Amino acid sequence: MNDAPIGIFDSGIGGLTVARAIYERLPSERTIYFGDTARVPYGPKSPETVRRYSREILDWLLGQGVKAVVVACNTSTAHALEALRAASPVPVLGVIEPGSRAAVAAAPRGSIGVIGTAGTIASDAYGRAIRSLRPDATVVQQPCPLLVPLVEEGWFEHPASRLVAEEYLGPMRAARVEALVLGCTHYPLLKPLLAEVMGPGVTLVDSAEETARALAEVLAESGLAAPGGGPGTHRFVVSDDQPRFLQVGSRFLGERLTEAELVAVG
Amino acid sequence: MNDAPIGIFDSGIGGLTVARAIYERLPSERTIYFGDTARVPYGPKSPETVRRYSREILDWLLGQGVKAVVVACNTSTAHALEALRAASPVPVLGVIEPGSRAAVAAAPRGSIGVIGTAGTIASDAYGRAIRSLRPDATVVQQPCPLLVPLVEEGWFEHPASRLVAEEYLGPMRAARVEALVLGCTHYPLLKPLLAEVMGPGVTLVDSAEETARALAEVLAESGLAAPGGGPGTHRFVVSDDQPRFLQVGSRFLGERLTEAELVAVG
Repeated sequence: MNDAPIGIFDSGIGGLTVARAIYERLPSERTIYFGDTARVPYGPKSPETVRRYSREILDWLLGQGVKAVVVACNTSTAHALEALRAASPVPVLGVIEPGSRAAVAAAPRGSIGVIGTAGTIASDAYGRAIRSLRPDATVVQQPCPLLVPLVEEGWFEHPASRLVAEEYLGPMRAARVEALVLGCTHYPLLKPLLAEVMGPGVTLVDSAEETARALAEVLAESGLAAPGGGPGTHRFVVSDDQPRFLQVGSRFLGERLTEAELVAVG
Repeated sequence: MNDAPIGIFDSGIGGLTVARAIYERLPSERTIYFGDTARVPYGPKSPETVRRYSREILDWLLGQGVKAVVVACNTSTAHALEALRAASPVPVLGVIEPGSRAAVAAAPRGSIGVIGTAGTIASDAYGRAIRSLRPDATVVQQPCPLLVPLVEEGWFEHPASRLVAEEYLGPMRAARVEALVLGCTHYPLLKPLLAEVMGPGVTLVDSAEETARALAEVLAESGLAAPGGGPGTHRFVVSDDQPRFLQVGSRFLGERLTEAELVAVG
């Protein structure tokens, strides 16, 4: 038993979909969410820069006494997870392994599609994780840089969003993928639209839920779970622009966000 | 006469449209272009953060011995121009005053529309500049966060881009603006599409050309123009991800970009 908080971090707002899944699965845990809103987005940045930023946030979270860290950002997981694990005295979980496991379970024989930011797709982190679980898997990957700004505009059902999704998902449909990994924390908000464009018979894999499940396992196995009883408290910290984080973040969290602290890192 | 280089800076790639206009108008001048690709975009960042980043770049350019600085970024001009002018021993020009002057000339009586990033529009920098020139002007402003990623995807004529433009420009058309200021350096690449959506009788104002004209005036008036003769040389410096800058930047510059140096600021 350990009542220290869990650290969750993301390049900005999107990781709140992962935080939300963690709150639901582990309601007694305290958490600290760090959104690097001063330096968002990580998607188009170089691997070295993403690693440096991620390391700075890890150090800040460790300074807050966290007992585990969830990298709730696909780009950061893709470029920095190994380096963070090597540097951290507490367990560090990413979103790519859990999402890949769920994809392989949903598509034991067929092709698997992966959509994400330019950085995540270029890293081939999902491709490698999926093939390590199922060496014969055909993985079809597509960077979708327009989906994040569409989500942040709140255009979940806009005709423009549909045209963009049709353009990006064309290769996935042609390849008849059995599962589609939503490899960016913003994408779950477009799930109904993406499901419609993909058509029936395709499982959409949302890494957030899979990551929360993996975290619950790690905490249980290593004796780090909170004693339970009361509900956990949730602290939010950002590196810039609290008003926008509170406004847009509420949409991601599915409940009203009222308070975020400002902390400079780097 | 002064053969020192001119410094041009932007949050990333978009300022190359301004650089291009400067090369065309002032072919004998040497220039150094700084693209802050590690910290792009500035649009959603807070005014304080944009001022801090802009100041760091100004200091770097001054260290290179520039004789004048062009802030080729609307967001940076909106939030930081005054602070940069106060701190700089050499002239500092922004893109908002020149663009506003051209808009007022194109719409001496009618309403004026302005489109830009969230930060530029929230600052009301164009509104203030336009009203200082024409106090009775009605200024209709609209943040267009999706246009930058559409340009960076190269979807200049894509049906999705048309739907997005129609959504954003609806209020401009309803207000029957006489001039529309393209208040972001990415937007000139969408000029044909935006012109079509706005319909005939609306002048699209591209700040890049107006800024180059203003720079030529400042150099001539203050005796800072290059002696002329040979063609100027152009140096490109970025804070991250040279390959993407070279690839996407060529589209903005209208010619092939082959070399960019990497420099860390901040």
